[in-house]
Amino acid sequence: VPKVSDEHLTARREQILEGARRAFAKHGYESATVARLEEEIGLSRGAIFHYFPDKWSLFFELAVRDQTRWNTLIIERGIDDLARTIYAENPDWLGVYLELARHIRTHPELAEQLEQRMTEEELPSGKARLRELQEEGALRDDVPLDKLAEFVNVVLNGIVAQYASGTELDVESVLKLVHEGLDPRAK
Amino acid sequence: VPKVSDEHLTARREQILEGARRAFAKHGYESATVARLEEEIGLSRGAIFHYFPDKWSLFFELAVRDQTRWNTLIIERGIDDLARTIYAENPDWLGVYLELARHIRTHPELAEQLEQRMTEEELPSGKARLRELQEEGALRDDVPLDKLAEFVNVVLNGIVAQYASGTELDVESVLKLVHEGLDPRAK
Repeated sequence: VPKVSDEHLTARREQILEGARRAFAKHGYESATVARLEEEIGLSRGAIFHYFPDKWSLFFELAVRDQTRWNTLIIERGIDDLARTIYAENPDWLGVYLELARHIRTHPELAEQLEQRMTEEELPSGKARLRELQEEGALRDDVPLDKLAEFVNVVLNGIVAQYASGTELDVESVLKLVHEGLDPRAK
Repeated sequence: VPKVSDEHLTARREQILEGARRAFAKHGYESATVARLEEEIGLSRGAIFHYFPDKWSLFFELAVRDQTRWNTLIIERGIDDLARTIYAENPDWLGVYLELARHIRTHPELAEQLEQRMTEEELPSGKARLRELQEEGALRDDVPLDKLAEFVNVVLNGIVAQYASGTELDVESVLKLVHEGLDPRAK
């Protein structure tokens, strides 16, 4: 029996995840049936579910990737670059997050699962970066950091929601107003 | 044959719309089957679709009502009261809007249909109210009004998206930061 190399396993996982992302974006999460996943991934259900126990796990891994990428981006480059990156994503894929809002809210253990996994990834701390910015004088210090983070999250979620529903948006002018809420030097 | 009174017709339409709202909130738009609509409304499919041609029309009428109410509220009472009102809605119902994002984006004629209907409703003009506020000095005048409106929409959509997915939110502290983006007197 030939030994399946790690490289091969990694390539397979990649193929499955990227096919699943296409299937979710194209049909929506609910309507991405096993047959449609097979078609988009190009593997049988047996092969797919050998690597991932169920449809949720496929979405979960994709969400971990996005969160990791977006988290790194906002820390290294700031909210403007993250907002522009999100606005350049496929709106069909962003819509999958909106579609899953109810599912996540009614299954709080799934949100916890994601949070725990993100902790394990040992990403640079967003809060530490905010504190740095505050110390540099680039962030106001009269509002608690977690409230500033909450405001930023609301804005980013709003950009996702408008973009996914097809409303045109001038991201730059939104960002200008966001900075006036965040930055004591902006006005 | 007894004449069906207008009053009766109005009551029936109300019963149907409020039952449909419950069914959409409970099951989601996609999963609100005709059988579930019948159950929640308490009328047969024949009766329901005598008043409304299809499932979309039910959602459309409910959306017109929300938009009318929210539009009046933001004009008469301002963004703070609207944000608080949205945050007091049923998150299941708000989630229906998110769930329909893809459907609306891929059917631009539906967004147009809603916009045209809102025009017919002859609501007070949001833009005129913004201009008033600007003249009173309560809104900055160095950014075009439609950009300010866009920013407000992003924030409101963000509140909907976070709330519908179960993330806790301190609406008051978000509003404080929003005002610093909008109001020259806020800082």
